[in-house]
Order: sequence, then C-alpha cells, then structure tokens
Amino acid sequence: MADVAKRAGVSIMTVSRVVNNSGYVKPATRQKVLAAMQELNYLPKGRQSSPHDTWMLIVPDITNPFFTFIARGMEDVARKHGFRVFIANTDEDLEKEQEYVQMCLDYQVRGLLVVPVGDPSSENLARLAEQQVPFVLIDREIEGLDADLVKGDIRETSRRLVEHLLDLGHERIAAVVGPLHSASSRERLDGYRDALVHRSIPVDESLIFTAPMTRDMDASFIDGLVERPDAPTALFLGNMFQYAHIVRRLRALGLSIPQDISVVSFGNTDDLASVDSLATAAIQPAYNYGSLGAQLLLERIEGVRKTPTRIVLHSEIAVRSSTAPPPAGIAKKG
Amino acid sequence: MADVAKRAGVSIMTVSRVVNNSGYVKPATRQKVLAAMQELNYLPKGRQSSPHDTWMLIVPDITNPFFTFIARGMEDVARKHGFRVFIANTDEDLEKEQEYVQMCLDYQVRGLLVVPVGDPSSENLARLAEQQVPFVLIDREIEGLDADLVKGDIRETSRRLVEHLLDLGHERIAAVVGPLHSASSRERLDGYRDALVHRSIPVDESLIFTAPMTRDMDASFIDGLVERPDAPTALFLGNMFQYAHIVRRLRALGLSIPQDISVVSFGNTDDLASVDSLATAAIQPAYNYGSLGAQLLLERIEGVRKTPTRIVLHSEIAVRSSTAPPPAGIAKKG
Repeated sequence: MADVAKRAGVSIMTVSRVVNNSGYVKPATRQKVLAAMQELNYLPKGRQSSPHDTWMLIVPDITNPFFTFIARGMEDVARKHGFRVFIANTDEDLEKEQEYVQMCLDYQVRGLLVVPVGDPSSENLARLAEQQVPFVLIDREIEGLDADLVKGDIRETSRRLVEHLLDLGHERIAAVVGPLHSASSRERLDGYRDALVHRSIPVDESLIFTAPMTRDMDASFIDGLVERPDAPTALFLGNMFQYAHIVRRLRALGLSIPQDISVVSFGNTDDLASVDSLATAAIQPAYNYGSLGAQLLLERIEGVRKTPTRIVLHSEIAVRSSTAPPPAGIAKKG
Repeated sequence: MADVAKRAGVSIMTVSRVVNNSGYVKPATRQKVLAAMQELNYLPKGRQSSPHDTWMLIVPDITNPFFTFIARGMEDVARKHGFRVFIANTDEDLEKEQEYVQMCLDYQVRGLLVVPVGDPSSENLARLAEQQVPFVLIDREIEGLDADLVKGDIRETSRRLVEHLLDLGHERIAAVVGPLHSASSRERLDGYRDALVHRSIPVDESLIFTAPMTRDMDASFIDGLVERPDAPTALFLGNMFQYAHIVRRLRALGLSIPQDISVVSFGNTDDLASVDSLATAAIQPAYNYGSLGAQLLLERIEGVRKTPTRIVLHSEIAVRSSTAPPPAGIAKKG
C-alpha cells in the first residue's frame, strides 16, 4: 500500500480510502490511485486465516449506541483488510480496562482502538506501548499521552450548543457533564464557559454539575436545581443517557419542555433511533471515528507512519423541539 | 454450586440467582441457600487469571440496542463468576459467523452465547458441538437443533400486537417481518396469522412482506403498498429499524401517524432511548436473555446439567401514540 501511495503521489490514507471506497477522494486522485494499483499489480489484502489477525475495540459502555457505531466503522475497514474485531466493554471501570488490555497481550491481538475510561487509563495503555502493540485513542484524549487519536471537536460543538440557547434569549443555563477525569467532559465544560464568556455572561459555578454518562445515572439532583428561586431556564447536557433521565425527571416534576425549560445535549449519533426524537442535539460522526481510527491503526501495523496523528472531526447540530425562548418575564431575571 | 443446590434442596439456577443477587428468589429459599453455602464453606468463584476464562457473544448486529442489552446481561453474570466476555458481530452474514466460530475454537473460549443468523447457522454451530464447546442459543431457535435456548414468546407477543390493532377497529393490517430463514421472523408471522384467524378475518397474502431487519434496510416497497386502492390502515413491523425507516417513508409520502395509518412494532428494548418514542411496541426483556443465557452456560461449564433447557420469556407491550382507530369510513372497507 505504501508503494501504491508513493507511485500515485498521495498519502497512504488516500490509497486506503480508494481501496475501502470510503471517505471523499477527488475523482482525478482516485484514477491515479487505481492506475498505480494496476501498474504495481497490487491487490488489497484478502481475508487471512491466522487467529492473530485480530483487532480489539475497548469501549466504556456497550449499550450506548455512540460506541457501537464506532464498532461498525472499525469493522468495515478491518474486514476489508482481513482483520476481525472483538469488542470488550469496560463499564467505565479502570480495573476491567486493565483486564482487557492484559487479554489483548495474552491473545497477541494485532492492534486496538480504545475509548479509554479517562486520564488514569494511561497506565493500562502504557503496557500496550511497552509490548509494541499499536493502539489508537478514540473520542477521549489522555493528558500527557502522545498517541494516534480520532475525536470530535467537542469544545467547539459545546460552545455552539450553548450559543443556540443564548440566541433564543436564555441567560441562566446549567451544565451537566460527565466525570472530569475524562477529557471529553472537560472539553464540554470548556465550550460551555467559552460561550458564556464570549457574551460577557458571568459563569455561575453553582449551575455546573458532574454526573455519570451511563445508563444507570441518578438524575435526582435536578429536583433541587429547578426548585431554586434562581432556577435555570435551560440545560446543557453531556449525552443521551443524561438527556433521557433528566427529561424524565423534569416531566415528573410537572415541567414542560421546551415551554418551561429548554434542553440541549450531545446526541446518540443514531439518526434512526432518533426518528421520533425531540432533542436539540449534537450528532457526532461516530462511524467515522471508528473507520478513520482503523485506518490509522492499519498505517501503524504496516509500519508506514511513526509519529502520532490527531484527527478531529466536526459535529452537526440538529435543532428539534426541545428548545424555545425562555418563559416570558424570566429571560432577564437572572 | 451443585452441592449447595443439593444441600439446600433447590435448583442450580436458584443458587446462581442468590449468588448473583439477580432474579427473584423467595426470602425463605434465599436463607436456605445462604445457610447451605455457609455449611459447605462455598465461596463463589472469584476472578481468575487464565486467558481461557473467556466467553464469547456472537450477535448479528452490534448497532441494534436489542443485542447490546443481551451483552450487558451476559456480562453481569460472567463477571461474577470470573469470566470475561468478547463480543463479535456477524452482520447477519453466515460466512462471518463461521469465522467467529472458528476463532472461538482457535482461542479455546470456554463457552458462547449465540444469536444465530438463522437455520443455516446449524452447520457453524455443529463445529462447536463437535469440539464440546458449550453454547446457548439466544433469541432465535434453529430448526432441528436441540440446544440450550433463551428467547421471547414472539408468536404470542405478535398476536397481542395485532390484536391491539384489531381492537381499535383495523381489519386491513399489513405485516413486515425479517427473512424467513430466522425462526424469530417465522414466529412473528405465525402470531400475525393467529390474531386474524381468531377474529375470522381472512389472511391476505398480498399484505405480507419480508424485509431486512437491519439499519440499512430499504423501505421503498411501502410506497406501492399505501398507494393501492385497498391499502392497509395499519402496519405490524418486525423491529425498530423497520419502524424507523417505514415511519420516515410514510411521513415523506405525506401520511400522518396515527391519523392516516397506525403502526405497531417490536421495540428496541431500550426504555431510555425511547424516552421520546411514539411507537406502540413490544418491549422484550433482552437483558434477561443475556443473564439467563449466561446462567445456562455456567451450568454446562460446571457439568451439572446434560439435557437442553428452553427458557421462553414474556414481553410487555407499551401502547403509545403510533396507534389509533382507522380513519372514518375506512374501517369496514376492507
């Protein structure tokens, strides 16, 4: 593949895109790559039979569609190159993460995509590096770890979500993000602050909450928040589990969305599951996190790249019916 | 565990429930089991370090939350008994299924839960039986294969979904189910027929369709159906992917749900994802498919049961806003 790239005068990634028929490649470039493949008599690697042609994907929550979309994207690339993918679920638990990393070493898997629990995962991942097992971080950076990475522009997307609320006239906006040992939670909070600061609205730390991003999160802290005299008129939430639990709780308290309170969230990336969804949400290209991550992994396995590459992808924001201007007479209260 | 069960005079499954703190056990029975455990100095197996204490889950579509819930249920039991779970995705493809079965043999996994592609999977699974690797079928029976099984009462649930439509006054009801090489699709169709026959409504074969149950299904066949002079007033669908694609298509054709056409479906089992859902749907206890399947697998691994066990679980039906009486003047037309 490196030879084809050289012959065609393009990057390995471009050759990979042509071979996989994925991602955009200019028609003229595609022609050049196909011509080079023919000249060099290059055939994309077919399926192989060795049990060690295996990749692993480690995710923190298998029941979150965001992560299974990453799996689909990874698999589609893996398959085309003769690799199979095993998936392991850490439940946001460092000890389980460590076990699965150990199994990757025991089973001699060829490479991994990892959505790490958070910064403390660096110790688990160091063992992969020691054994020279290539891995790519997905979705979550790790402070101080210079590794291949595919993630979303979470800070920027968070800023845009909060700006949507500001544009509607909200000024008291609460933020709920995940645990701050995960970079993806810190970036959400940074984006929230960016939006407020840009409009010269003071950041009220009493409106900032951290809560699990998991299916079993407890949203009861919302009760106290909405009963405060200076209750927010809008909420910025970290993911669809937080959205579902908090929306349910708000409805149980007799509040209507968006009439009484507006809600924005990071979405679940699943445009099918959301055929009925009311949530104004950021839709991250999770499939591409997996497919591009797999392509970075391929480059490492083929030894054609030695220095870490960072890929940061843009998210769309779907404006639906969970957001509206604040109730009359409230907008300026805060 | 067998000794504890014998001493307490209960089944292995009951002991397993107590050990795992899952499922319902009468307080008096629980006491008996705990007493027997103490008398026999029995400690639940802790985590082990051998890389072969691994179970595999093979599912046909990792992006369908129904299957990831099975994974969660399986994992919770596996963990408590010191096993780890790898997940593999076959994409409803027999060849991929065969590869993953081969890898299970190569890697010497201790046991599997398998949602098979369909009846033709029996050849793949026969290789597990030959090598005496225990496995449990989940969700889909295989004709002629007498194996441990955990599934839903799909035929009965389908009948109840269609009866809900009949009770509202619908008589022309179309059915869309998955490929008929899967028992779970045949059972859906049987339940549909049961409901009609029970009300002496003739089954119109031209209202029965098979379509993929996958994320990339093509719902364009619906156009011709709703444009027929004898168009149905209601649809019975196989899963949430079919629901999402078909509802989208109906809306694109200018039809309102449920004013113009009612829709019932098998649901995605995810009560959180469906916080905004409008679908009247059957909610299958997918988590329990995984946890009970794992308990059957444990019994096989521990050698305490030699004959196949079938567990068939009941589904709930959530009546939401995708169903209503047929448009005036149409109900009796069919």
